Amino acid sequence: MIKTPYLLFLGDAPDQLAAKVAIGIKDWRPENAVGQFKMNGCNADLGIENLSLAEAKEKGAKTLVIGVANRGGVISAAWKSVLIEAIEMGYDIASGLHNLLRDEADLVAAAQANGTELHDVRIPSVQYPIANGKKRTGKRCLAVGTDCSVGKMYTAMAMDAEMRERGLKSTFRATGQTGILITGDGVPLDAVIADFMAGSIEYLTPDNDDDHWDMIEGQGSLFHVSYSGVTLALVHGGQPDALILCHEPTRAHMRGLPDYQQPSLEDLRDVALRLAQVGNPNCKVVGISVNTQHMEDTAAKAYLAELEAQMSLPATDPYRYGAGKLVDALAAL
Amino acid sequence: MIKTPYLLFLGDAPDQLAAKVAIGIKDWRPENAVGQFKMNGCNADLGIENLSLAEAKEKGAKTLVIGVANRGGVISAAWKSVLIEAIEMGYDIASGLHNLLRDEADLVAAAQANGTELHDVRIPSVQYPIANGKKRTGKRCLAVGTDCSVGKMYTAMAMDAEMRERGLKSTFRATGQTGILITGDGVPLDAVIADFMAGSIEYLTPDNDDDHWDMIEGQGSLFHVSYSGVTLALVHGGQPDALILCHEPTRAHMRGLPDYQQPSLEDLRDVALRLAQVGNPNCKVVGISVNTQHMEDTAAKAYLAELEAQMSLPATDPYRYGAGKLVDALAAL
Repeated sequence: MIKTPYLLFLGDAPDQLAAKVAIGIKDWRPENAVGQFKMNGCNADLGIENLSLAEAKEKGAKTLVIGVANRGGVISAAWKSVLIEAIEMGYDIASGLHNLLRDEADLVAAAQANGTELHDVRIPSVQYPIANGKKRTGKRCLAVGTDCSVGKMYTAMAMDAEMRERGLKSTFRATGQTGILITGDGVPLDAVIADFMAGSIEYLTPDNDDDHWDMIEGQGSLFHVSYSGVTLALVHGGQPDALILCHEPTRAHMRGLPDYQQPSLEDLRDVALRLAQVGNPNCKVVGISVNTQHMEDTAAKAYLAELEAQMSLPATDPYRYGAGKLVDALAAL
Repeated sequence: MIKTPYLLFLGDAPDQLAAKVAIGIKDWRPENAVGQFKMNGCNADLGIENLSLAEAKEKGAKTLVIGVANRGGVISAAWKSVLIEAIEMGYDIASGLHNLLRDEADLVAAAQANGTELHDVRIPSVQYPIANGKKRTGKRCLAVGTDCSVGKMYTAMAMDAEMRERGLKSTFRATGQTGILITGDGVPLDAVIADFMAGSIEYLTPDNDDDHWDMIEGQGSLFHVSYSGVTLALVHGGQPDALILCHEPTRAHMRGLPDYQQPSLEDLRDVALRLAQVGNPNCKVVGISVNTQHMEDTAAKAYLAELEAQMSLPATDPYRYGAGKLVDALAAL
């Protein structure tokens, strides 16, 4: 668990896109962020208060979260001077970078000297068990996609927020680096050893109240040949009661695979449900989440209406039109 | 690559079963083993020549292969004295044990001093790429099972042997520790990081002659919730042209999962083929391999005949009745 609240480190982010992690935290857990920290040359802005390390400390910040992708894949000298100053003031540091904090001797030495923690969420910090497949109490919802990066994290986040707004019991369960930094906990599934993938998801989504829902962040796609094994571990380790189909209708081909086309939503429904029912025979497909960012409002609405008729399932873009329909479908189960 | 030929170290194996790896080498690559090395208290025997380290060395042995599971999960002091003596005589050591050779300081020191290699096939020695899904030349056959441990390695080994006996081009591709030690090369898939699973199988089964077959060792099962993700990475990374369905008809439940039943062979066929056709639209299910070790000969033959009628596919037990039918089916593709 990463200690909250955070000060969000934007460094010298070249543009807004580079600050994806920080934006996710600001959008989904604004209460976790006391402010942002920018360096010279930073072109990203979260629209929240600019704070110095000392000011944020006074406002209670416990962890400096690196909310930005680093240039060139290395932790620069300019970044380091800030990080070390933060450590010396008692901050923990959390990062999802490939360049691990723990591989930087000066950061490790400073953290040891000051008794603070370095969190590298890129890689697991837990020795996960092998999955045992035992039926767990509580309910689980998993977003599965026709492709990678079609909005599965966003869908689970939006449904979780809507559930809690309605006073229902829900926990977003992060399975990727961004989700872990946003919520402070989770499993970096893409970095787990093959034999322990499904077990890590059982560990992430344990027994719970009968009326509690885990909203599990999806990864990859059963139809994406590079990452499908990771997805199936989620489907079987997560033991979902409900599946949400996620889709981005304007893709020319599968992400990173120019020779592959997305499956139809019918194919995704049939294959994902068949596999999910191995782990949970009562699993149902309850709704469709469409990423319509590249469509005009009228086209998007027409597409969603058509999809609802065609699939006999509620369909929405939770970012654009809210997650209400999907939560209604869960509640009706 | 592990240097051949081997001297097979049986240590103080409590029984024949503990020497599974050595038996596999003797059965499938007898030309790789110059003899066996037994210690006091060894209750396993391969029926091949007992040799001292020096005698085996003279016969050309390059690597001492630990062909036995160790008691208590640790490399004992008694074993170590033999291993160090072997290293000092110039042997490489190869092991699939969880207790890694490289974690034993005295073995590492001896190997460094003598310029010999320690091979821990339990874990990867290669940084595998992320799968790119590009169509590769050559042909590939993958064994998929209704459960774990139903004879997938045996099936691929037997088909590979039959292919080569017929003068056809075939390479067994190991994906587990035993297979790697038998053949001297392969991918320890269960120990690969999630994101690189499918890529490791692409790496293992590269472009080849149009009439060459890779016989890929299967792992787990698409229906085994603990390991299904590993299996799907094989299905997508392996890009198989042909699938062999593997089954053990007398199981009361899925291995290690008392609450789960094996799927039917029809279910396995449909699910595996649908998923395999994502990576290779031309993939076909060509035959069935049944592990009949717990059935009488007449019952086994009746079962196989019934299965052939029911599934319209050739069915055999390659251990008992040879792999000819399965290789005929491949050749007919």
